[in-house]
Amino acid sequence: MNKDNITPSEFRKLCKTQAHSGHTSGFCTGFAQANVLILPRHAADDFELLCERNPVPCPLLGKTLLNIPTKIDNSIILNDSTFDLRYNLPKYRIFENGEFLYDKTDVFNEWEIDNHVGFLIGCSFSFEKALENEGLIPRNVALGKNVSMFTTNKYLDNAGIFINTPYVVSMRPYKLNEIEKVRNITRKFKKTHGEPIDWGFDAVKRLGIKDLNNPEFGDSCDILEDEVPVFWACGVTTQVAASVVGKSIKGKVMSHSPGCMLVLDIKDSEVSLL
Amino acid sequence: MNKDNITPSEFRKLCKTQAHSGHTSGFCTGFAQANVLILPRHAADDFELLCERNPVPCPLLGKTLLNIPTKIDNSIILNDSTFDLRYNLPKYRIFENGEFLYDKTDVFNEWEIDNHVGFLIGCSFSFEKALENEGLIPRNVALGKNVSMFTTNKYLDNAGIFINTPYVVSMRPYKLNEIEKVRNITRKFKKTHGEPIDWGFDAVKRLGIKDLNNPEFGDSCDILEDEVPVFWACGVTTQVAASVVGKSIKGKVMSHSPGCMLVLDIKDSEVSLL
Repeated sequence: MNKDNITPSEFRKLCKTQAHSGHTSGFCTGFAQANVLILPRHAADDFELLCERNPVPCPLLGKTLLNIPTKIDNSIILNDSTFDLRYNLPKYRIFENGEFLYDKTDVFNEWEIDNHVGFLIGCSFSFEKALENEGLIPRNVALGKNVSMFTTNKYLDNAGIFINTPYVVSMRPYKLNEIEKVRNITRKFKKTHGEPIDWGFDAVKRLGIKDLNNPEFGDSCDILEDEVPVFWACGVTTQVAASVVGKSIKGKVMSHSPGCMLVLDIKDSEVSLL
Repeated sequence: MNKDNITPSEFRKLCKTQAHSGHTSGFCTGFAQANVLILPRHAADDFELLCERNPVPCPLLGKTLLNIPTKIDNSIILNDSTFDLRYNLPKYRIFENGEFLYDKTDVFNEWEIDNHVGFLIGCSFSFEKALENEGLIPRNVALGKNVSMFTTNKYLDNAGIFINTPYVVSMRPYKLNEIEKVRNITRKFKKTHGEPIDWGFDAVKRLGIKDLNNPEFGDSCDILEDEVPVFWACGVTTQVAASVVGKSIKGKVMSHSPGCMLVLDIKDSEVSLL
């Protein structure tokens, strides 16, 4: 299988037939990928409000139409007769009462047609390519590792059942004199977290990050002597939110398994135009 | 002058002729009022991005068309041939380099036609009436005082020159068993800060509020034994943001003088539909 030349629709079909059940990094180069969160209807309106109120950590790209897991409410998925969010991820993660239950390659049995709504959330993969193109390759990309992610003591603005859920941030190290350029490049990716929310070693304290060497998610990442940590809001925030208030959610909650995203029909460069 | 029966357009005309230069509380009952911030063009795009990224503390209701201080870009000001944002507030506050210069009843001389842009920001006056209508009259309204406002250690998500600017919150005390109702009532006022961002005495610590009895803005407010403080995001956040980064803004910055808001042509109940 050629990772680059396959179309998003073909790739999603490989997931559906379980011919691919691994991560999505490097597949369908140039096309955007999305975080996925699937919630019971009673939690869905509150989640949509959470996204509206916190668009930087929770940039909502689209959602499934009620009762129709095969349609997204906008054109980030084109008219694809084989699209079905119950099958189109390589791997799903299933939760109940905020507890992890199991991973699965489809959620056909878990997705209640008259109840569940699937949400697609922007992902920072989209701006990493742009940084690379400008000679500011993120360390995690250069090393082929997952980005470092940290839970912070900065809280989202509450929305309905979503109370006191924390920002999760991704961290990429840069030199101080690169930061303005890094900010300018990522700023225009409005639907995939945009510019950094903070940077520098002061920011570690402001965000209440306990140990820069021990990320809560992803891989650890060295910071060289002439570098400082730069923090972006991160889509994992939405999964953590669903987990923090898990006991208030009746029924199953599903998400993509880490790194196993939904491949969209729009290009990275088009996401920021949404 | 009958405070209630005057139309917004007539009230704004009184401001223009300097027949009224005091606060706007209680005038044109039922009509929404807006915070005003007027910025040089080079800071205006960054400010608009700040509002997009932080819609809860900075709910943007509208802005003047470039080079036209007599037109707002939507219908919160109706076709009013006498509208002119250089005159329509009872009193303005003028700043430069982040420092307060003076108060004035118009900004005709300060507003550079080819440079300044005026922004209208939602104000919590809009939801106070709704709370009152449901028998949950805010203490500040009952006592005829200004609401208590506090600077916090929660930062907005950065945007361009707007770096590390803090949330300002307003505080109204309620009983614990009233909070769900208070949340439900204010939630729908999406363009005027919506539901509270935090509550309880734990929230005082989370938000880094130093002394509940000494608000940075507005009047102090007793909290009775069976009550807890409830915190909403507050439009003063935008003025503080302009002040914090004042030295990065070249030219004059103007805002409404505290309590002297812009009276709009839409009703409080319509603001949430914007």
